Parts: sequence; structure tokens; C-alpha cells
Amino acid sequence: MIWHPQLASLLARFRHANAIAILDAPFPSYPDVETVDLIVRRGLPTIPDLVDLILSEHEVTSVTMAEEFRQHVDPQTQADYLAHLGDLPVQWIPHVSFKEEVSRCLGIVHTGDPVPYSNVILRWG
Amino acid sequence: MIWHPQLASLLARFRHANAIAILDAPFPSYPDVETVDLIVRRGLPTIPDLVDLILSEHEVTSVTMAEEFRQHVDPQTQADYLAHLGDLPVQWIPHVSFKEEVSRCLGIVHTGDPVPYSNVILRWG
Amino acid sequence: MIWHPQLASLLARFRHANAIAILDAPFPSYPDVETVDLIVRRGLPTIPDLVDLILSEHEVTSVTMAEEFRQHVDPQTQADYLAHLGDLPVQWIPHVSFKEEVSRCLGIVHTGDPVPYSNVILRWG
Amino acid sequence: MIWHPQLASLLARFRHANAIAILDAPFPSYPDVETVDLIVRRGLPTIPDLVDLILSEHEVTSVTMAEEFRQHVDPQTQADYLAHLGDLPVQWIPHVSFKEEVSRCLGIVHTGDPVPYSNVILRWG
Amino acid sequence: MIWHPQLASLLARFRHANAIAILDAPFPSYPDVETVDLIVRRGLPTIPDLVDLILSEHEVTSVTMAEEFRQHVDPQTQADYLAHLGDLPVQWIPHVSFKEEVSRCLGIVHTGDPVPYSNVILRWG
Amino acid sequence: MIWHPQLASLLARFRHANAIAILDAPFPSYPDVETVDLIVRRGLPTIPDLVDLILSEHEVTSVTMAEEFRQHVDPQTQADYLAHLGDLPVQWIPHVSFKEEVSRCLGIVHTGDPVPYSNVILRWG
Amino acid sequence: MIWHPQLASLLARFRHANAIAILDAPFPSYPDVETVDLIVRRGLPTIPDLVDLILSEHEVTSVTMAEEFRQHVDPQTQADYLAHLGDLPVQWIPHVSFKEEVSRCLGIVHTGDPVPYSNVILRWG
Amino acid sequence: MIWHPQLASLLARFRHANAIAILDAPFPSYPDVETVDLIVRRGLPTIPDLVDLILSEHEVTSVTMAEEFRQHVDPQTQADYLAHLGDLPVQWIPHVSFKEEVSRCLGIVHTGDPVPYSNVILRWG
Amino acid sequence: MIWHPQLASLLARFRHANAIAILDAPFPSYPDVETVDLIVRRGLPTIPDLVDLILSEHEVTSVTMAEEFRQHVDPQTQADYLAHLGDLPVQWIPHVSFKEEVSRCLGIVHTGDPVPYSNVILRWG
Amino acid sequence: MIWHPQLASLLARFRHANAIAILDAPFPSYPDVETVDLIVRRGLPTIPDLVDLILSEHEVTSVTMAEEFRQHVDPQTQADYLAHLGDLPVQWIPHVSFKEEVSRCLGIVHTGDPVPYSNVILRWG
Repeated sequence: MIWHPQLASLLARFRHANAIAILDAPFPSYPDVETVDLIVRRGLPTIPDLVDLILSEHEVTSVTMAEEFRQHVDPQTQADYLAHLGDLPVQWIPHVSFKEEVSRCLGIVHTGDPVPYSNVILRWG
Repeated sequence: MIWHPQLASLLARFRHANAIAILDAPFPSYPDVETVDLIVRRGLPTIPDLVDLILSEHEVTSVTMAEEFRQHVDPQTQADYLAHLGDLPVQWIPHVSFKEEVSRCLGIVHTGDPVPYSNVILRWG
Repeated sequence: MIWHPQLASLLARFRHANAIAILDAPFPSYPDVETVDLIVRRGLPTIPDLVDLILSEHEVTSVTMAEEFRQHVDPQTQADYLAHLGDLPVQWIPHVSFKEEVSRCLGIVHTGDPVPYSNVILRWG
Repeated sequence: MIWHPQLASLLARFRHANAIAILDAPFPSYPDVETVDLIVRRGLPTIPDLVDLILSEHEVTSVTMAEEFRQHVDPQTQADYLAHLGDLPVQWIPHVSFKEEVSRCLGIVHTGDPVPYSNVILRWG
Repeated sequence: MIWHPQLASLLARFRHANAIAILDAPFPSYPDVETVDLIVRRGLPTIPDLVDLILSEHEVTSVTMAEEFRQHVDPQTQADYLAHLGDLPVQWIPHVSFKEEVSRCLGIVHTGDPVPYSNVILRWG
Repeated sequence: MIWHPQLASLLARFRHANAIAILDAPFPSYPDVETVDLIVRRGLPTIPDLVDLILSEHEVTSVTMAEEFRQHVDPQTQADYLAHLGDLPVQWIPHVSFKEEVSRCLGIVHTGDPVPYSNVILRWG
Repeated sequence: MIWHPQLASLLARFRHANAIAILDAPFPSYPDVETVDLIVRRGLPTIPDLVDLILSEHEVTSVTMAEEFRQHVDPQTQADYLAHLGDLPVQWIPHVSFKEEVSRCLGIVHTGDPVPYSNVILRWG
Repeated sequence: MIWHPQLASLLARFRHANAIAILDAPFPSYPDVETVDLIVRRGLPTIPDLVDLILSEHEVTSVTMAEEFRQHVDPQTQADYLAHLGDLPVQWIPHVSFKEEVSRCLGIVHTGDPVPYSNVILRWG
Repeated sequence: MIWHPQLASLLARFRHANAIAILDAPFPSYPDVETVDLIVRRGLPTIPDLVDLILSEHEVTSVTMAEEFRQHVDPQTQADYLAHLGDLPVQWIPHVSFKEEVSRCLGIVHTGDPVPYSNVILRWG
Repeated sequence: MIWHPQLASLLARFRHANAIAILDAPFPSYPDVETVDLIVRRGLPTIPDLVDLILSEHEVTSVTMAEEFRQHVDPQTQADYLAHLGDLPVQWIPHVSFKEEVSRCLGIVHTGDPVPYSNVILRWG
């Protein structure tokens, strides 16, 4: 069950060909994309907190992440984060392209995640 | 999973001491209570359709119904409808009181149910 | 009679050269097109439920559907669905084009229909 | 079929125990009651125009009118107007009370009717 | 005097180089143009009802109509309708162009007129 | 013809038993009453400017003014102002009561009139 | 002091490189530009009334007017109007261009001025 | 000249019998009263900054302050603050009553003033 | 620094005599009180997460909690939670009264805290 | 702590790659960019007042200013202003380009600063 009203509404509208971005604390604001603000402080909640929640409630078929995550984040953190995605295929694109993709998402969920480049875009169908 | 955006938002706000009314086709409109309109036609969807959906997604601890349901509806339909409520305790009140209770609910879900007095108020805690 | 307020308003504005899309459960959300949300759960209500309602209340002169419906859906389901359209001429276009057409519709009615590619666009005049 | 979007929405919400007022040209404005403005000029449309339309689309079980209609309007006009109500029972109340009742209606339809005291409140159930 | 609040406001903003379209019952909806809905039913009110009202209250210097009106409407109806325009010069353009012009109007008045192609665009200055 | 859009809309809603207040420059603001702001500067426009305009467009059957106008304003100005009201009956009440009446009006028109106590409330029916 | 709330707000936002148009009675409506409606009737208030008010409250460094004012308005009226502009430099452009400039202004003030082509655009800095 | 758009609009509506409160940094929020937020930080701007501005632009005839200002603030600060009020009569009331008065004001201007009990209510007429 | 836009705005308006409620997951919804939704899931974030954040950014002088917290929660959890409040004085009131107090708060922050009766109301001054 | 509600919200949304403009008194209005109005009068508050506040609350990594500041402002004022920026790198661009950059900022803070060309754009990351 989703307890957050706006997040529940956004997930109900997340359908085939739609995409939702789960973003870290300092990721740019996109005034023209519907945004669910969940950040309490840097570090709370994390992107895996949201990934776990959404995958338990909603079908997701692929993920997009920035290549820079694989290049700049230590291997242990990489492994910990990717474990939350299970067997979902990940499309790796440059961070610059990732920011453009976010502008075309149905919605944004803003977390307090402190790990650089850990942002994910979830897609269904 | 709840696919209806407004219903998903309403259920996310349905907490202890709050109540949600599931109403039949001709039940009066309450302009001052948030209403999720789901009626397609008289008969579609039914109150049990909604009761099943909500009980599968959200904790409910008691139900309120109108005494007139027990007095005026044929026993088979009564049994069919009450079966959807499982072991939930039912508080039976006069229809006139039921209509007052609806005005104090957090929200209304309007169905096409054709069975008279089959309306229910769901409560949690 | 239409009992759903927003659907009643939308049909009142459905005039010559306008189009209304009746869409299945997982069809993408179009935030920029007026949407009447009717889905209760996957399977309820269906696209034929809405087609029957609208054709009984409003003149419709043609229908658009995706070619993939004829290619991927079993013949019995095809026949059952098309029977609801009566003698209306059907224009068959690729699903990719169908999604573009939806973005130009006056409104969308979102159902819980589970049959793939069963979406229809209704036109008048 | 109702072609006027706001009127179609209002009638969809006109349910048991709700009331709708059909008012003549100079009847006072009620800023706090939802109002469908249909007046073109004094005389167009009339209250019978609306009564005919609504009775053909929606169940109505009783009518309220001002006693002054029976006292001040010529018998032929009275007969012509009442003929549109068919067999519906009419509750006759003082015009002063009628104006109070209007403030409790679900909605108002404002016509250009020129006959004094010809206003009606329609109720269902 | 104009008794309809939104129509009164629209006419107050109808100035030099602005245009207002008076449209028949099945004319397409234009969600992006301000629309005054006056239709009660097919046939009520008519476009001449509105033309008479507006010409009695506001200066108009020219009219645009669809050529198809002259080609497809019987001569008597043509004569009856055009008589309401008095000596105003009429610009005749194809119906397809007429529909494009409507999208650039300051506002639309939607009537129940049943005569095909009887739509008019009024201009001042 | 009324050229001011909001004033045109307000007058269209000014019906039997409704009242409209025409107020001088320093009269208190009433945030809860719809207000048409017309003041350019102290002295422009005047209350008689608005009285002339409204009486030429709309039926008015009585006027309310503050007794203090008769007590404190020089006879020539009194005569000039009252001449604009023609034969309309004037109800004289204390300024304190006048301010309470304004809070119950359908709308306020705010002018730049500099004459003390020259405010009027217009009523119809 | 500015007594008109919306005009006061607009002038507070009138800064370097911004422009405000003061327009006559029949000048076209621009739905996409913020508009302060001040017209009472044709002739009241005038453009010079507004020019005097704004110049007494706000710095203005240049004015734009239509060439047609110099060509079509009698010399005495021209002199009377231009006297209100004091020593401000006037840029003369064709009326067609003037109408395009208005669409780029920060705001419009609509007066009742009856003199053709007397519209002005005020600029600061 | 007032450069702040909302403050300019509020002062334009500040008329006879209306009151405006100028409040220090920690004064309670009143969600139901229109509030102009001007605080940059504790200490900037001050209540005298606003008093000077408003008195230079708008007529004020009396002031209300809390008695506690005279009891708890050092004489030099008292003198400095009261000097900004010139000859305006001051009504001294208990702080508890002052807070009730604020809830009835036309508007609030929130400053960063650090001096306790230095809040003022300005009245005109 | 507060990273959540609505929470940052709410804390900026949290002044003397105002109160803010930090509530656990199943606490009732209050549609009439401004609510910042932060819940991700039951357990995330907690009330102490929010208490720590707010006390680090904003002055708080007292706390209100429900007596039932001291009666029903195990001592270790009690101690852990109260440690976050430091030396702040706690006012203990019945849970029924606590729910009434919440309806008078300036705002609500909704967390996912799972500990019963752990809700707090923070006050300043 | 930020006491101004809208400024607090804007800073909470000021993230990597976003920019905020702090502008002087006569800088043009940008109706399409969110604007926090803080000006009390020319000279209050200043751009350094806001720079100090924002740098104490939020990370900033670079600044953009107009070249004309270095060319036209006296050296002492230049030094005083630049001292508030500490070690932040300053990008100098023509004033014409600066005005274009402002149109792409996340938000504007409007001050009363009287020093020409003293505007700054703050960026993070």
C-alpha cells in the first residue's frame, strides 16, 4: 500500500510507455514536471527506499541510469544499489542525456539520496 | 494496486478515525465531500466490486450500514453482499442517520450499485 | 442517461470532427488531454461497457482501432468486441499511429479493459 | 441527450433528495449556488423548455412552486405551464419560502422565462 | 441589456479587429477558445436569436459565413437567416477555412441551431 | 452598452432583490464582496457617472443613501447628485447602517467620487 | 497615490525595459496580456487622464504612438493630447506595428478615450 | 512610489475604517489574513522602515500598539520608534487584545523587526 | 538547511504562538489543516527524524504529547524518543485532546512512524 | 534560518544546475519567472543583504555579473560589493546577455539595491 497521497496518484497514472524518475538530493529542479517531494535531509530517504517501495507495488520493465554511476561510484555501493533493481535491464546513458530524459518523464520523486549519479528512471512496457 | 488516481490518493489519506462511504447509484450528491465518481451505468460497478478492491489494499476494522438493508432486501442478496465484508463488525443505523454520517466522511466513492440501502461506510481504527 | 458528471460533460462537448478515446488499463497516461478515470481494477469496466453506454446516448459515425488488435487477439474475443460496434466503419491503423491520434482527442475515458489493443477512438461526423 | 456541458454535469449529480431550481429571468442571483446560465433574452428560453428537457432525460418525483403563481397568473397560462409537469405532484408554498428553498438546491438553471412566479424546484425521491 | 453574465463580459471585450463566432449545435468544440454555452436542445436557441441580440447591443461591421450555406441550404431558409444580418457585408469562405477562423476568434457562442452551415463570425472594425 | 467586462457581468447578475453599491473613493474595502474597481484618481469617475450609466442600461426601482448626505453636504451638490436619480424613491438610513447594508450587496462599484456620504445602493424589485 | 489595486500592482512591476499600453475604447482585446479595465463609457476616462496619473507617480522616459494620430486627428486635439506628454520623446510607428508592440507589453490599461489613434505605449529606461 | 506589487495593491485597498498591521519577526502567522512578507532576516527591514514608507504614501489617522511596548522596551528605543509616528494618536491596548485586532485587519505586513512589542496597527478614518 | 519546499515554507511561517504537529503513519487526516506528506512507508521516516531536523533549524520552546505514550509504549522506546526532545518541557494530555489540538495547528507533518502515540506538537513562545 | 516563506521554498528547490537571480530595484519584470518581491524602497534591502543571507544558508559555487558593473561603478563600491561574494568565481558577461540569462533562472529575488549593474546570478554545481 502507498501511504503518500500524491505518490499514490502518480503511480496510478504510471502506465505503458510512461516513465518516472527517482532523483537524489541535489538533482536539478524541473518546474514543468510533476514532482513528489520526499526529502527530509541529505541521506533520508534514499533512492533504494523508493525503488523497493515502487517495485513492490507496480510493474517495472526497465531502468535507465547514468554511465557516470558505473565510473565514479565505489564498487560496493554500486553493488548495493543495483541489487535493489533485481533482474531489471539497465540502460546506461551519459548523465547529460539522463537530465534530458527527466524532462520528458511523467513525474519526479525527489529523495535525499547522497550517492552521486544514483538517479534512476523507471519504465513500464 | 489501485489504478484510479483520485481513489489511490483518497485511500492514502484514509487513516485511523477516518471513514469512506461507498454509495449506490441514486444516493444524494454531497457537494462538500470529496467524491470519486466511478459509476458507468446503473449496475456497474457495484458496491461489492469496491469493497473487494478496498479490503484487498487497505485495513478496515468496521462497517456501518442502514437498518433498512436488513428489512427491505431479499435474503439471498443480503447474504451475497454481506459475504464481501467477511468478519468485519457491522453497525446498523437508520438510513436517515446514515445520510448524516456520510456528510462527515473523508470521502465518497460513487458506484452504480442498484440494490437499495446497500451503501456502506468503511472505518479504520 | 449519463450518471457520471465529468463523462456527461465530456459527451456534451463531443461534436462534429471531435474524437474521444476509450482506453484499456495499461494504456499510457496523457497529462495534456482531459481524462475521465473509470477504472476500478484490471477487468472492470471494459471498453465494450463504455462503447455500449456512449452509443446508446450519442451519435457516432466511425471508429479507429489498432491493426495489432486483428493480428494478436484471438478470433472469438475479436468478434465479441467488434459486435459492440454494430455497423460502424472501422479505420485500422498501426498502434504507433493510434497513440499519436489519442494525443489529439477531445478526451480520454480510461477503463480497466484487459484485452490488448482493444482501444477505440470514436468520431462523429 | 443533453448538449450543454455544465447542465449535463449538474443533472448527473441530481440524485435522491437533491433538488434543482429552474428560475425565471428576474429571479435573484444566488452567488453560493451553482448556476447554469441559459438566458438569451427575456422570453428565451422558457421554464417549460427546460422542464421538457429535464423530464425527458431524468426521473423527477415532485415539484415545488410558489402559491402566488396560482393567485396572480391568468388561468390559460397556468394551464399551459402546468401541462408540462404531467402528473407530478406539486407542493405549493409562499414565494418567500420558495426563495429560501432555492438557497438549499444542488443547482440553479437560469432561463429567460417572463411569466411571474413560474419558477419550479424539481426533486427526485 | 444582456442578461447572461459570461456573454455580457465577452461582448464587453469584443472590440476592433476582434471576432466572435456564433455556432450551430453539432459544430466542433474548441477547448482553447472561450465558449459561452447556450444550447438547450437541438433547435433552441437559434443562430438568428443570437444575431438579433448581439446586433441590438453591439456594433458589427462584417460577417463571415461558409460558402456551403449558399450551396446546400434551401432558398427560403437562406433568405430567412440572411435577413437577420441586415445590410452587413458577408464574406463567403469554404467551411474548412471557416473552422480555422473559429480557432482565432475571441470567443464562441454555442447555440442549438439545426440548420447546416448556418454558423456566422461577427467582426467589428 | 457596457464596455467594462466585469461590470457587464455583474449587471447581468443584478436581479430582483439583489443590490449593488456605488461607493466613493475612501469608502472601506469589503474583501468578501465582489468589487469592480473603477477609480482613476480622487474625483474620477464620480458616483453620478456610474448612476447615469447603470440607469441607462438596467432597471432600478429604489435607492438607499446615508442620512448624513442630507445633513453634511451643501444644498447645491445635493441637488446636483439627486437629480441623477430621477424619480427613484430614496431610503435614508444612518451611515453606520449603510456600511452594514454594503456587506450584503451582490457587488460593489468603487469610484473616485470626492463628495462625502454620496454613496448609493441601487435595488431592483 | 494610486487608488486602483490592480493598477497599483502593475505600476510597481513597471521597470526598466518594460512597457505599458494606455488604450482607447475600441482598441482590440489582448487576452494574453494583463489588462486593467477602467472604461466607464466612451469618453470616460481618457488617455490623458491616465497619462497624467502615471507620469505623476512613475518615471517614464519615452512614448510610442501611431503615425496615423498625426495624419488623421485635428491639430487642436493633437496639441491638447501631446501637451500631457511634456518633453517625453515620441516614437511614431504605423498603427499596424503599434498593435504588434501592444502584444509585447507588460500590461494594458483600457480607457474610454474616443479620439482615434490616441493610444500610447509608455516605456522606462 | 511603492515598488512592491502586493504592498501597492494592499495600500490601494486601505481605506476608511480599514486597518493594516505592521508586525515584527516572530509575531504569529495568521493564515486567514492577507500577508505581505518582507522579512529578509531578523533585523531587516524594521517596522519604522515600513511606517516611514506608508506614511509618506498614504493618509493614516491613528495607531494601535501594545501596552507592553511602554512597559518592557528601553526608553531610548521607545523614543526612536515613536518618533516615526509623528503626531499620530496612539491607542495602547494589552498585547493579548492586539493579537485579536490583527485577525480583523485588512492585511499584514511582516517585517524582520527585532524589538519586542513594536508592532503597530495603522488606521485611516 | 531544509531541502523540502513545502516544509521550508511552513517552518518560515512557524512563529510565536503557532504550533506544528509531527504525526505517525496511521494518525487521522485533517483535510482543513495544511499537511506536508513525507511518509514513504510505515517506518520511514520517523517522528524523531523530523524532530531532529526541525530542532536543528528552528527555535522550539515546548512540546505536547499524549499521556497514552507514557502508558502504552515500552520504556526503552520511550527513552529513545524523548531523548530527541532534549530539555524541552513536555505537556502530557489525553490522546482525545491531542487530536483536537491538531485541528488548531498551523500545519501537519505526516511521517511513517510506527510507534503508537508517538505524535508531538511543537510550539514556539 | 529563512523567515520568508516563498524565499525558503525557492531556496529548497535551488539545486545543481539551477540558478537564482538577485536583482536591483529598476531591473525589468519577468512575468514568466517565479519572483520573490522583497523591495521596501530604493535602497532597502540591498543585493549584498540577500547574498549574505543565501550564502549563509545554501551552497553556491559560482556567480554571474554584468561587465558593466566593473566599467561604470566606482572602485570602492565595487570592492564593497564583491567582498560579499568571498572566493566565489565570477563570470563577467555583457548586461544584454545577463538579461537573457535571467529569463532562464529558476527564480528571481527583487531587492531595492540602488547600485547600477550590481545584479548577480548565483549558481550551484
